[in-house]
Amino acid sequence: MTKRDVYLDYVASTPLCQECIDAMYYAMTSLYGNPSSTHHFGRKSNVIIEQSRRMIADLLYCSPKNLAFTSGATEAIHLGIKSICMAYKPTAIITSKLEHIATLKAVEESAMLFSIPLVYTQHNEKGDIDLSDLDKNLQQYPSSLLCLMHANNEIGNLLPVQEVGEMCKKYHTLFFCDMVQTIGKYDIALSEMPVDFAVASAHKFYGPKATGLFYYTHKIESLLSGGSQERNMRAGTENIYGIYGTAKALQKNMDNLKEIQTSVSNIKSYCIEQLMRISNDIVFVGGCEEGGLYNLLNFYIRDKNTDTIRMQLDIAGIAVSSSSACSSGSEQQSHVLSALGIKSKSLRVSFGIQTTKEDIDYLIQTLSTLRNRD
Amino acid sequence: MTKRDVYLDYVASTPLCQECIDAMYYAMTSLYGNPSSTHHFGRKSNVIIEQSRRMIADLLYCSPKNLAFTSGATEAIHLGIKSICMAYKPTAIITSKLEHIATLKAVEESAMLFSIPLVYTQHNEKGDIDLSDLDKNLQQYPSSLLCLMHANNEIGNLLPVQEVGEMCKKYHTLFFCDMVQTIGKYDIALSEMPVDFAVASAHKFYGPKATGLFYYTHKIESLLSGGSQERNMRAGTENIYGIYGTAKALQKNMDNLKEIQTSVSNIKSYCIEQLMRISNDIVFVGGCEEGGLYNLLNFYIRDKNTDTIRMQLDIAGIAVSSSSACSSGSEQQSHVLSALGIKSKSLRVSFGIQTTKEDIDYLIQTLSTLRNRD
Repeated sequence: MTKRDVYLDYVASTPLCQECIDAMYYAMTSLYGNPSSTHHFGRKSNVIIEQSRRMIADLLYCSPKNLAFTSGATEAIHLGIKSICMAYKPTAIITSKLEHIATLKAVEESAMLFSIPLVYTQHNEKGDIDLSDLDKNLQQYPSSLLCLMHANNEIGNLLPVQEVGEMCKKYHTLFFCDMVQTIGKYDIALSEMPVDFAVASAHKFYGPKATGLFYYTHKIESLLSGGSQERNMRAGTENIYGIYGTAKALQKNMDNLKEIQTSVSNIKSYCIEQLMRISNDIVFVGGCEEGGLYNLLNFYIRDKNTDTIRMQLDIAGIAVSSSSACSSGSEQQSHVLSALGIKSKSLRVSFGIQTTKEDIDYLIQTLSTLRNRD
Repeated sequence: MTKRDVYLDYVASTPLCQECIDAMYYAMTSLYGNPSSTHHFGRKSNVIIEQSRRMIADLLYCSPKNLAFTSGATEAIHLGIKSICMAYKPTAIITSKLEHIATLKAVEESAMLFSIPLVYTQHNEKGDIDLSDLDKNLQQYPSSLLCLMHANNEIGNLLPVQEVGEMCKKYHTLFFCDMVQTIGKYDIALSEMPVDFAVASAHKFYGPKATGLFYYTHKIESLLSGGSQERNMRAGTENIYGIYGTAKALQKNMDNLKEIQTSVSNIKSYCIEQLMRISNDIVFVGGCEEGGLYNLLNFYIRDKNTDTIRMQLDIAGIAVSSSSACSSGSEQQSHVLSALGIKSKSLRVSFGIQTTKEDIDYLIQTLSTLRNRD
């Protein structure tokens, strides 16, 4: 078995597509005026930002007025949740223990800062949100703020956004939806979705790291003030390279969406098939095996040490993760698996447009060797 | 007179140097692992971030442990001021009305949020901080937080940091210094300066937009939580392109600092000389004419409409500004000039390594034509 580099962590970050690289390079070499400057060098920079916003708005079926650029999803999550709490004083913040750690921190800090009750709505053992418990919570706290993610970044479960959004409308609840793992991967028409706020992250769809999108349908205050950028939503000189790169990457993705979905879904099915072929001890976690996010699998091998397997895969050249990258510096168990009552650590394997069957074969062969070794 | 494009707004933003472009391009094409991922793709990204931090720390004579990367100076200013107020509960925030609008907003918001008195220390008619008034304020509020900028971004006045820092030590005051216009332009040894916190912005020294530096000597809490990036100081996937580009741009600048300082200072002297030659009605604002920031001039022409001149310069291809870019969307008078009691608007002309005598000649010729026209 020849050693090869196999990247299977597309959910943590993706390589930039060529269109994105070209756009960023253009901005780096040709646009240096400060986009806020009124002279022609500044206007030229500003035009690219507004063209990018328009492109993204068209691709996500919303108005450019409802989109702000941020330095990433983490900032967009904090901007959204804290500013909503500040502006609308919700009766409660309702969320789940399965959210990304940035959301969990933002809701905790907001609840404390603004003395708002914080309610964790229940989920089943697969990681699906329990809609009847959610209904109960929404009923108990009308005019609250609901923070739930569209697709879980560790276990891939998809939220029935339409249904949840309708429940929110019924109880006059604002719905903040973390769409980091779905925008760019699904055909999403934001203006037709029952969400009030959403966030996305460009480096999950072959765009640059450190560029986030914040979608808002209600006016809120800036967290970073001191400049009129982003229609007063976010002060600071704009990341013009990242913004233009984001627009081009999203365009590329949406233009080829069907093809990407088919090829990546096929890779996922092939991987499940091959995993089940080599062992009866594979345990899939959450909703990833059936119906979840089409580019993610999460599993462990019964009675095997996951950390050891992950390190041995890394030595063999294969990059998979054990939880979200943002938490992966720590040696602790994933908070998502803990919330599901799972004691074993697990492997998160995720696929992208560059993933081939040969990559999966190499993963399977390596796993088989490791399995037989001890 | 042949029309040409002349960029004279280096204080608002600078073009990227080739070394920065090359570094960013390398990161864009070769580093796609999430720097927080523990696999080899992630480690490769993380190594570049830590190498960049080390390079910058060496160039600024400080420990890499004291540097955090942010999405720009605005974020670093908010992170610094708000977190210091949260962690250290200063008896007062002392600042001046001449600070950048991001600082003015951050101190106002912090003062309100944490119920801390906000004191504006006085300055003279040239825009220099009145040190005896400052001493009085520091004495009245020992253990306060002082927020003053090293070089004013509109009028170029330089703060005697050493003297001010010693006053702060005497009164146990934390000193937060906005060094956006000096880091990269002067030989600054951070660890030898009497400042507790400082911020810098890469796009002021031929580095990328949207990368800021935060220097801190006391531990404070993150504003953006939800990930252990930047030693828990700043959650969110790192802007790896911007960070690497910043290190390379700073390196280039510091390697050629003497040469840059000499050539840009000469351009400034030449510009002053030529301006005074064409008119007796030139009024220099603040401390820019003598001793201030070596790449900035701020002036108006008595009895002339500055907005009209600025627009006509723009039509002729010459980019100058009327105030800071962050405020320049608005039609209002600069808050700095207002604080100096100046009613006339002014032109801020700033120079960089690409500025030539021919650029200045073209500016002077164009100004002469405009002056004679009406």
